[in-house]
Amino acid sequence: MVSLAGGMPYVTALPLDMVGELVSDLVRQRGPVALQYGSGQGDPHLREQICDFMTLEGIEAGADDVVVTVGSQQALDLITRIFIDPGDVVLCEGPSYVGALGTFSAYQAKVVHIAMDEHGLVPESLAQTIYALHTAGQRIKFLYTIPTFQNPAGVTLNVARRQQVLDICAKAGILIVEDNPYGLLGFDGEPMRALRADNPDGVVYLGSFSKTLAPGFRVGWALAPHAIRDKLVLAMESAVLSHSSFTQLAVGQYLATQPWQEQIKSFRELYRERRDALLSSLDFLMPPGVTWTRPGGGFFVWATLPEGLDSKAILPRAVAERVAFVPGTGFYADGGGARNMRLSYCFPEPDRIREGVRRLAGVIEQEMQLRDTFGTGSAPDHPGVDTPGPDLA
Amino acid sequence: MVSLAGGMPYVTALPLDMVGELVSDLVRQRGPVALQYGSGQGDPHLREQICDFMTLEGIEAGADDVVVTVGSQQALDLITRIFIDPGDVVLCEGPSYVGALGTFSAYQAKVVHIAMDEHGLVPESLAQTIYALHTAGQRIKFLYTIPTFQNPAGVTLNVARRQQVLDICAKAGILIVEDNPYGLLGFDGEPMRALRADNPDGVVYLGSFSKTLAPGFRVGWALAPHAIRDKLVLAMESAVLSHSSFTQLAVGQYLATQPWQEQIKSFRELYRERRDALLSSLDFLMPPGVTWTRPGGGFFVWATLPEGLDSKAILPRAVAERVAFVPGTGFYADGGGARNMRLSYCFPEPDRIREGVRRLAGVIEQEMQLRDTFGTGSAPDHPGVDTPGPDLA
Repeated sequence: MVSLAGGMPYVTALPLDMVGELVSDLVRQRGPVALQYGSGQGDPHLREQICDFMTLEGIEAGADDVVVTVGSQQALDLITRIFIDPGDVVLCEGPSYVGALGTFSAYQAKVVHIAMDEHGLVPESLAQTIYALHTAGQRIKFLYTIPTFQNPAGVTLNVARRQQVLDICAKAGILIVEDNPYGLLGFDGEPMRALRADNPDGVVYLGSFSKTLAPGFRVGWALAPHAIRDKLVLAMESAVLSHSSFTQLAVGQYLATQPWQEQIKSFRELYRERRDALLSSLDFLMPPGVTWTRPGGGFFVWATLPEGLDSKAILPRAVAERVAFVPGTGFYADGGGARNMRLSYCFPEPDRIREGVRRLAGVIEQEMQLRDTFGTGSAPDHPGVDTPGPDLA
Repeated sequence: MVSLAGGMPYVTALPLDMVGELVSDLVRQRGPVALQYGSGQGDPHLREQICDFMTLEGIEAGADDVVVTVGSQQALDLITRIFIDPGDVVLCEGPSYVGALGTFSAYQAKVVHIAMDEHGLVPESLAQTIYALHTAGQRIKFLYTIPTFQNPAGVTLNVARRQQVLDICAKAGILIVEDNPYGLLGFDGEPMRALRADNPDGVVYLGSFSKTLAPGFRVGWALAPHAIRDKLVLAMESAVLSHSSFTQLAVGQYLATQPWQEQIKSFRELYRERRDALLSSLDFLMPPGVTWTRPGGGFFVWATLPEGLDSKAILPRAVAERVAFVPGTGFYADGGGARNMRLSYCFPEPDRIREGVRRLAGVIEQEMQLRDTFGTGSAPDHPGVDTPGPDLA
């Protein structure tokens, strides 16, 4: 099976001997701290290191405004817990991250999607949607956006639009939750400037070491304005008391002693090669009528099938041909995405990616022939195959 | 300062070299798994080990019904999230764990305390309270109880009462949430049989390695009936995607390769010595009129001051004399506990405990003299000193 479904980073590329030595030193030298309870806000030294880390994206912040969380997923959960009453509106790109949609749904938020194109969120669509919702008397709590190397679409909000999005939200008094796990994994040029860099009071920034180091430590964070930060710390204590001191100190030790910028550079090279393998084989093998995005970083390509095809219906046949992807509907709260599929290039090696695309192209071609013969492809709602859970995302 | 306030286990007693070697081997041998995302339910092998672990308390369970959580605090949070709508009633011992009360309050549950004596929860009080609440049309969602070496009271539900509590709750159709972090830290005889052991369908059991190994890994769990287990896994994924693979595998490796029962025995000896130091110095030094519980295990003694004294009002003077405790009011949701204090013996060494009690006895004596002279001790609501947060508990 070639899985183009999962969003797992390729942690095998880490120097495991070095990480092993580092965690062993940590226990021997700082065991009584690493093995003990920590504070709800997170290790103070790690929070300073996180601030240094964020300067790469133009963010100036103090450690006091950072809350370390169990992956950025927990930051998202706590933010939602704090802000959402049932029926409140959250604005999201369409499509958006399945784990975020799940959390918003768990708190009974109403998700309204904003159109996106190859340059990211469309500001006009954002402004119009806000106006329409305000007019309809609906309460918008925040805009959730992944501006850079978006999951699942693989597109990036361009510089001009960043300022427009900030302006529109500031004018409407709408908080922005900027989720940025892939920001440092761009294949060309310098990292994009974060939205947070240009509006410290109007943006909650969510970061993560899951893609720049390893998800197994579950170390993410939120950077938030004071009043929200206070509520996040209380929510954190109520939810888990404190995050693991051990994994927080391990990440801190890694940042303090290892060439982490070099490691990120090497991850970038690795993922760039895989993206290239995916795009070139799509270019070469996909039948006409299938289109896809061309990501400048991150993990994902978003493909669109021709009219009359349904990605969820195709999945069982693809799995039978030993290739997997994530159907598009899971990335919409409103039933959209039936013709879409997310293709991940982060985990399989380039040759496997090419083989996966070869299989997938064959399946899609067959589906198109079915459609041309019978007027439709495989029926949707095929039993036994459902949208993968968030751990696949 | 001698702190009799914190509930931190004495992790310094762990063989740190061994733990260091263990985590280093883990990365070298299983790095690609330990550093990767895991499943929402938790590592399957660790869940089997947890089942073996629970047999010490008479529990028979399958790994499929265990959900690994970020400390048992997260299990408590997720259970509350699943069951509580605002205004629902949770029954708790009075006093009860401050971190649980905080979580119940965060979800707007109404906490109703059940009387406790030196043999634990009073069954008659439980039955009467349930009857009164049912009669008043209130919706009781569960009984939250720490039956063994209770936090903060230090008392244990005796065997006869365990069956009564199970029967009362079963008859009333009320779920029991059994929180048992200290069950294996008894000073005499065999571990008590868990409530869960005698009613698999009516009890959600919460366990933790924070006190038997180390809190820094944040590995706890819930053992729940199928239907609740399913909801817990979904809630877990929504909250944090998955717990740290690294710390889960580290705990698993520890259980698989180290003499963990010997380690628990050595923790028991250590805490027994400290409990003895606390009780004997209380016996020797406390002025008449002060009473306290005599725990058979765990971390805490619950003291009661004479009429007219207020523990929260006394705290600033105690801190000035370099001894700290947790005032009793934080352990009640209804304003009770003004004359109580929780004294922890888990962290300071025996000589320090004796010195702490000497200082505290002096402060209480002075307060009693104040009261006898002026009719009252220090005024309550002294500014600047508040009930410590959950991370002190």
